[in-house]
Amino acid sequence: MDTLGKTITCLAAIAWKKNSLSLEKVEVEPPKAGEVRIKMISTGICGSDDHTIKGIILVKYPFIPGHEGAGIVESIGEGVSSVKPGDKVLTLAVPQCRECSACLHPKGNFCEKQELGETHLMSDGTSRFTCKGKPVYHFGNTSTFSEYTVMNEISVTKIDAAAPLEKVFLVSCGFSTGYGGAINTAKVTPGSTCAVFGLGGVGLSVIMGCKAAGAARIIAVDVNKDKFEKAKEVGATECINPQDYEKPIQEVLFDLTGDGVDFSFEVIGNPETVAAALASCHESHGVCVIIGLVVGVQLNISGHLFFSGRTLKGSVYGGWKGRDGASKLVSDYMAKKINLDALITHTLNFDKINEAVELMKTGKCVRCVLLL
Amino acid sequence: MDTLGKTITCLAAIAWKKNSLSLEKVEVEPPKAGEVRIKMISTGICGSDDHTIKGIILVKYPFIPGHEGAGIVESIGEGVSSVKPGDKVLTLAVPQCRECSACLHPKGNFCEKQELGETHLMSDGTSRFTCKGKPVYHFGNTSTFSEYTVMNEISVTKIDAAAPLEKVFLVSCGFSTGYGGAINTAKVTPGSTCAVFGLGGVGLSVIMGCKAAGAARIIAVDVNKDKFEKAKEVGATECINPQDYEKPIQEVLFDLTGDGVDFSFEVIGNPETVAAALASCHESHGVCVIIGLVVGVQLNISGHLFFSGRTLKGSVYGGWKGRDGASKLVSDYMAKKINLDALITHTLNFDKINEAVELMKTGKCVRCVLLL
Repeated sequence: MDTLGKTITCLAAIAWKKNSLSLEKVEVEPPKAGEVRIKMISTGICGSDDHTIKGIILVKYPFIPGHEGAGIVESIGEGVSSVKPGDKVLTLAVPQCRECSACLHPKGNFCEKQELGETHLMSDGTSRFTCKGKPVYHFGNTSTFSEYTVMNEISVTKIDAAAPLEKVFLVSCGFSTGYGGAINTAKVTPGSTCAVFGLGGVGLSVIMGCKAAGAARIIAVDVNKDKFEKAKEVGATECINPQDYEKPIQEVLFDLTGDGVDFSFEVIGNPETVAAALASCHESHGVCVIIGLVVGVQLNISGHLFFSGRTLKGSVYGGWKGRDGASKLVSDYMAKKINLDALITHTLNFDKINEAVELMKTGKCVRCVLLL
Repeated sequence: MDTLGKTITCLAAIAWKKNSLSLEKVEVEPPKAGEVRIKMISTGICGSDDHTIKGIILVKYPFIPGHEGAGIVESIGEGVSSVKPGDKVLTLAVPQCRECSACLHPKGNFCEKQELGETHLMSDGTSRFTCKGKPVYHFGNTSTFSEYTVMNEISVTKIDAAAPLEKVFLVSCGFSTGYGGAINTAKVTPGSTCAVFGLGGVGLSVIMGCKAAGAARIIAVDVNKDKFEKAKEVGATECINPQDYEKPIQEVLFDLTGDGVDFSFEVIGNPETVAAALASCHESHGVCVIIGLVVGVQLNISGHLFFSGRTLKGSVYGGWKGRDGASKLVSDYMAKKINLDALITHTLNFDKINEAVELMKTGKCVRCVLLL
């Protein structure tokens, strides 16, 4: 390729400060050792991207947001062996180094190399992005809101060469996080009753996971009833709006189920909803999985809820080991074992990124794919 | 027997008000339908008995405390089929009705009939105890601090006829709660690293469970270093006193282990210790089990601890289904698979009950058995 070893000038969305995202020409340097430069084809906008734009998640300005994406490897740095130029890949916010205690443990997936993302720079302490002569920070080792990005090899996974990138970008974060939260973290059992709090793209993916695991009853909970039709389309057996009841939602769920649900999922990131979701579970064997982002908040939960045996579990990237899980799920999509199409409601060109961010906030959009 | 069908007059310890326990002559009526009258042979004093005496756990005065005990069936009420007069039995604070959703679920054990204990009366709404002409309340369907007690059949389990009652009373609560917390609730894995916060009788039983499950490293944590010798005797590989460090105990445990422990156990019932025990776990796959009584308290935990995948689990009676679990563990004791003897440090006659309560508070006593 004629870009090999050269700095590429391309379009990227830069957050200069809180709540400010603008398209700029950026320079993207070639990948150094252990790094991969990717021509991005598609990127989604996830709830946590909005958190970064708002500055709720720790970032350094100016930076290029975005973590849910798919693209094609443009070039690789020294020592990179798992992908080569031309490979279709997904960008992963949760890397898989295959060497740390989390990667080596059968039940672990929160790779310790995740901490590389906390510097907002590459491993050598520098950025691969510049704009107007100044360095621009990375985000989460991904920075997918750019026509080209540079990532660590451990955060990039090769996928099926036939995979449609305008669909499978969802495996990079949202779909896998929800679906795996049900399958891997909760280990939903056949015939069980589940409750899913929050019906965005991740919540809908939880419903799909519950359904795939054979749940008999999947109760979808949201204060926006416009989301109920889609929830039923992907597998919810009933939908309830807490605002329709005077009782707390956990009591409503006990009324509906008799003894509480077997599994509940909090897919909002609200401490009060976490407590309600835990209280909605069966007192003896109930499992509540926190999928919504609860970083920076305190959970205040009655000890009594645990006394009888309930379980509260965290879940990140649906418990999938980053690279292994993403590749497998794309293969499952190609084999028609999972359905991503229902989650993609809007398609826009990359230059409409601010429109896409607004769309996400309205709740009318499950996932908008941006094509680069 | 000449007591059959008759009211028995015997000695019992009555709590008339908070922090007041006195030996009195009580009348114990014959068992009604579904009930069993037991001649108590031995009873332990558990931390939660102290909670009842202090009135921290909801009780109704006057009542007869005690829940950890062993005895011999004196007579049975109509319809009782699982035990007969002369059978050796244990008294269970967690019943097993074999009909409710908890009993029928493979992972459940908090029998819904537990709620019968909340009335502090028998199922027909009356008490079987009177003292000085007035009714005396039951506690937890057990009330073992009496030479004779009346319990529901579902809270009584027949055990091996050769079992020494002055030892196996411990299976009725303390030992099983700790040992099962490690074996059943945490499912401690071979080669793993565990931390146990609180080294009373239940904490020591957790250590035994971790050891039986093949843990490679068992770190015992307590502010009373007098407890360390016994902890090592039953399986702790190292003992630490948080007061010996300036750092928070979770940081000390990370220093000792590199990545945190695989399993942690809170066996105190202190909300701050619960948060520390969870924080001491491996961020990705770590499991913290709450065994200490956290009823009536709020847990205040950073959401961040869950973000990376940690699990917080409640555990009651070590996850054992009451009657099945207790019978099995007594058989295991008879087969020398488990060791209860190390936990019994003191033996006193029943009339020394107030001395036994004080002994427990000193921390010098693991378990004092009272012989009736």
